[in-house]
Amino acid sequence: MSRLDETHDPGRRSWIESANAPGTDFPVQNLPYGVFSHGGGPCRVGVAIGDMILDLTAAEGQGRLGTGQPVFDTGSLNRFMARPKEEWTSMRRRIAALLDAAAGTRDLPLVAQADAVLHLPAEIRGFTDFYASREHATNVGSMFRDPANALLPNWLHVPIGYNGRASTVVVSGTPITRPLGQLKGPEDAAPRVGPTAKLDFEVELGALVGTGNAMGAPMSAAEAWEAIFGYVLLNDWSARDIQVWEYQPLGPFLSKAFGTTISPWVVTRDALEPFRVPPPERAVPLLPYLREETPNNLDIVIEAELAPEGRAGRRILRTNARWLYYSAAQQLAHHTLSGCAMETGDLLGSGTISGEARESWGSLLELTWNGRDPLDVEGGRRAFLEDGDSVTLRGHCDGPYRIGFGTCAGTIRPAPAAPGPRD
Amino acid sequence: MSRLDETHDPGRRSWIESANAPGTDFPVQNLPYGVFSHGGGPCRVGVAIGDMILDLTAAEGQGRLGTGQPVFDTGSLNRFMARPKEEWTSMRRRIAALLDAAAGTRDLPLVAQADAVLHLPAEIRGFTDFYASREHATNVGSMFRDPANALLPNWLHVPIGYNGRASTVVVSGTPITRPLGQLKGPEDAAPRVGPTAKLDFEVELGALVGTGNAMGAPMSAAEAWEAIFGYVLLNDWSARDIQVWEYQPLGPFLSKAFGTTISPWVVTRDALEPFRVPPPERAVPLLPYLREETPNNLDIVIEAELAPEGRAGRRILRTNARWLYYSAAQQLAHHTLSGCAMETGDLLGSGTISGEARESWGSLLELTWNGRDPLDVEGGRRAFLEDGDSVTLRGHCDGPYRIGFGTCAGTIRPAPAAPGPRD
Repeated sequence: MSRLDETHDPGRRSWIESANAPGTDFPVQNLPYGVFSHGGGPCRVGVAIGDMILDLTAAEGQGRLGTGQPVFDTGSLNRFMARPKEEWTSMRRRIAALLDAAAGTRDLPLVAQADAVLHLPAEIRGFTDFYASREHATNVGSMFRDPANALLPNWLHVPIGYNGRASTVVVSGTPITRPLGQLKGPEDAAPRVGPTAKLDFEVELGALVGTGNAMGAPMSAAEAWEAIFGYVLLNDWSARDIQVWEYQPLGPFLSKAFGTTISPWVVTRDALEPFRVPPPERAVPLLPYLREETPNNLDIVIEAELAPEGRAGRRILRTNARWLYYSAAQQLAHHTLSGCAMETGDLLGSGTISGEARESWGSLLELTWNGRDPLDVEGGRRAFLEDGDSVTLRGHCDGPYRIGFGTCAGTIRPAPAAPGPRD
Repeated sequence: MSRLDETHDPGRRSWIESANAPGTDFPVQNLPYGVFSHGGGPCRVGVAIGDMILDLTAAEGQGRLGTGQPVFDTGSLNRFMARPKEEWTSMRRRIAALLDAAAGTRDLPLVAQADAVLHLPAEIRGFTDFYASREHATNVGSMFRDPANALLPNWLHVPIGYNGRASTVVVSGTPITRPLGQLKGPEDAAPRVGPTAKLDFEVELGALVGTGNAMGAPMSAAEAWEAIFGYVLLNDWSARDIQVWEYQPLGPFLSKAFGTTISPWVVTRDALEPFRVPPPERAVPLLPYLREETPNNLDIVIEAELAPEGRAGRRILRTNARWLYYSAAQQLAHHTLSGCAMETGDLLGSGTISGEARESWGSLLELTWNGRDPLDVEGGRRAFLEDGDSVTLRGHCDGPYRIGFGTCAGTIRPAPAAPGPRD
């Protein structure tokens, strides 16, 4: 049953010394894929190793990767992700062997991460955001509906999700403009247009679909697990005041459409194999299409740091993806149940990840209880985000060794003027 | 103010005689764009004229269109739609002149529509579905909530919409597989998985975005009108029983994600210029960013026909896009308000188009009042769609002349077996 192979050997070391440092995100057991450029050149596919990047586009061109048809020649991961999963695994073995301390040659195309610009790793086709943390759904239901019946009746049966907006999925480091929107307080007679006063982040795990399904042909949960290429950190920026006025009856729309940040390095499903853990206990039996015969949750610690402009960052939460009630495989299987076609490059957000303890709640909405209990940050307090604030997510797995996700960061820019004629 | 030019001359005729027939959808005043193939060849861009197609990919290759860089060479309309709107207008004039009865040459690459296979006209990037018919929203609110307060408080202020699923937008003629989904009746203790028993269609108008906006930079309604390249008929297939169980609190998801059919010919904004009409009277003043200084509604009659397998079709409704409370320009402006980036090839659905009279309601949900009053069809009755049923939408404008949208059709195929282990 186990898919562990020599690429998961905890004793393995690389000839790139920074990959052997205890705290690195990118040891030779990780090998996450990303897209980078350097010196103003075109986008290239690479693998992070220590503080370096192995340039796969160049290595492939040199015939070092054993690929027949090129798969790393388009400046995005999509072509490789669309290949059969067996090729993902064999490529991982080949790259690990090239970087192994015992490798016969060290003549490989490498670029220092410090010299590279990172781009979106894939062309994101569709973005779907789920709502898979029971603690998060319970917190939100308690705040806005009824604490005694915080979870809606469908939640324990359905991996609830909605279609998000793929055009504004951006890579870590891209500034986020504070959104304008229709705002209406409970006492206001009519809405007005203005910048959100409740700008928030949401800590999520993102799953990238490798191989899809044909329209009309659902996948089982077991098939769905294998269709996922890898995972990134994801920040689903949210405007709570816009959301509360717009979301009935068709769900969140513009309040979530202005920006979604992902981390640049895609940690592969293969790399996460040693960190699979069972899901939380089921409150009610799941329908057959959602049942998993393997542990498909992932033990990934994720932390968020908030830094006001010109100030040091301070950690404001620490949570874990293992607490999610529905795995990405269950979400993907559910997504296909009605026959929806999933495509290479589709992104699934887990939904905000919250645990039981307050310090594990994954949004300011929860951490400040809708602004009632502001958080201390360097030089001030925060109910919601202010212009100039930076939010940085970091994630890693600890087990036989440590593998990391790098960072997922964004800084808030002021809102633009409202469009259209002045009143 | 008027954008009418010689391409709108009602007296103009073409040397292609079928374009001068009184009932044609495609006179020389229309000139809708589409993508076709014939004889097993690659996809090409064309314009419908009478019962023929002018092959623009070939005409451009022959230097007949005066384009510098090619715009019709990719098998989709996206490259042309991304060009400035002035080029859309000048191309329309050039094509009209080539097809004019007085044209100097008749030596053009033409293909009979009967010999062509039609494809999706554009690569659809994002699909957003709105809810812009006040009568439809009122019918649905009356049925499922409270007839006395059928419209939610935001509806008269916000062009309500949600992100749909672009991967299952298909061209007319593509079969639609009956979706599986979680189903739970009010008396059931728990949900089960099964084929929808409430499969429905929704009559909509689709708008294709030509030129988009940068992330963080909203458009005004006036800018949005000019950013729209053209319009298609759209059928938003829907599973009402799946929808009612899944949609709280994040909106419709799988109940709308299994298929959306569009008509193959994109009727341009330029062609629709003579058919602009004012919107319905405003119940409350709109916020400035939604105010329109020109009449941006469109007087388009749309009819739907239902044909059981092996039986003749019967018209079951006749409605008009002019009754929509929000225009596509208002929807697009709203879509960008929060800074959401819109892209070439994004598709906006109007939402189900219903008028006041029952025969103008745009879905079976409304026509049968959630199945209570089945419709007569050839050889039977229908509360919702059965396997083998075909639904065909047709649309046209009547004014100084008639221009048509062609057809938007789909046939229901039986559901697949449920995935995953048997219980």
